[in-house]
Amino acid sequence: MAPIGFVKRSSSDEYERDRSLVSRIVFKNKFAKGLDGIEEWSHIYVIFWMDKILDKEKMLVHPGGGKNMGIFATRAPIHPNPIGLTLVELVKREQNVLWVRGLDAIDDTPVLDIKPYPDWEEGHWIVVTDFRAPQWLMEINK
Amino acid sequence: MAPIGFVKRSSSDEYERDRSLVSRIVFKNKFAKGLDGIEEWSHIYVIFWMDKILDKEKMLVHPGGGKNMGIFATRAPIHPNPIGLTLVELVKREQNVLWVRGLDAIDDTPVLDIKPYPDWEEGHWIVVTDFRAPQWLMEINK
Repeated sequence: MAPIGFVKRSSSDEYERDRSLVSRIVFKNKFAKGLDGIEEWSHIYVIFWMDKILDKEKMLVHPGGGKNMGIFATRAPIHPNPIGLTLVELVKREQNVLWVRGLDAIDDTPVLDIKPYPDWEEGHWIVVTDFRAPQWLMEINK
Repeated sequence: MAPIGFVKRSSSDEYERDRSLVSRIVFKNKFAKGLDGIEEWSHIYVIFWMDKILDKEKMLVHPGGGKNMGIFATRAPIHPNPIGLTLVELVKREQNVLWVRGLDAIDDTPVLDIKPYPDWEEGHWIVVTDFRAPQWLMEINK
């Protein structure tokens, strides 16, 4: 496992959770060819390595309101493998650089992989709009 | 980076690309607590390591019809880091085991992380239904 590229923000002070911001993913030159045709997708998944996350032992967190939730049931970044996964809008590509909107990763974050969105199987897209989420979060997000 | 668990299929002969099949993810016992509350989600992302993929140098593939496409613009599993990402339906949890429908990973695949679906920000879900994909694939999947 080695980075295929790095996130570059216009400033290291940028608030990375502002999803309206555009950041770049600068791929290693040897992977540029692998991006051919990516422009035809409007959205991609970015899989990155949150190398600043140090707490990998905690199993419970308390989002919203006091209730114990397992780390895997939340978006807490403290996972045993601190892998980030974000669905972003692809704005443009130039050679080995992608401009993306909505990537909540800090400056210089190593990128491990990208994938087109959405997945598909046997002639149909896998886009899930009918989902169930925890009640406390449904209340916030409805 | 170490597996948090492994995919277990009812038989190693099962066709892993049949998305109607239910398989299990058996987590290491020390991570069981981290699954608390996961039952409240209907869908999760599974991030896994395709440890049988050996070709990591190829940058172009030819899906559908002969056109050169970069590996990152397709769902080809031959990526520099052979990370799998699949959105699955969560059927049930028992302690350290999740039953999921639609996981296209072979028996004994190492699992690196899971995340709830969908992501959210500031009071709304990030569910993208208005997307653009390559023309040849739009034709197949429309």
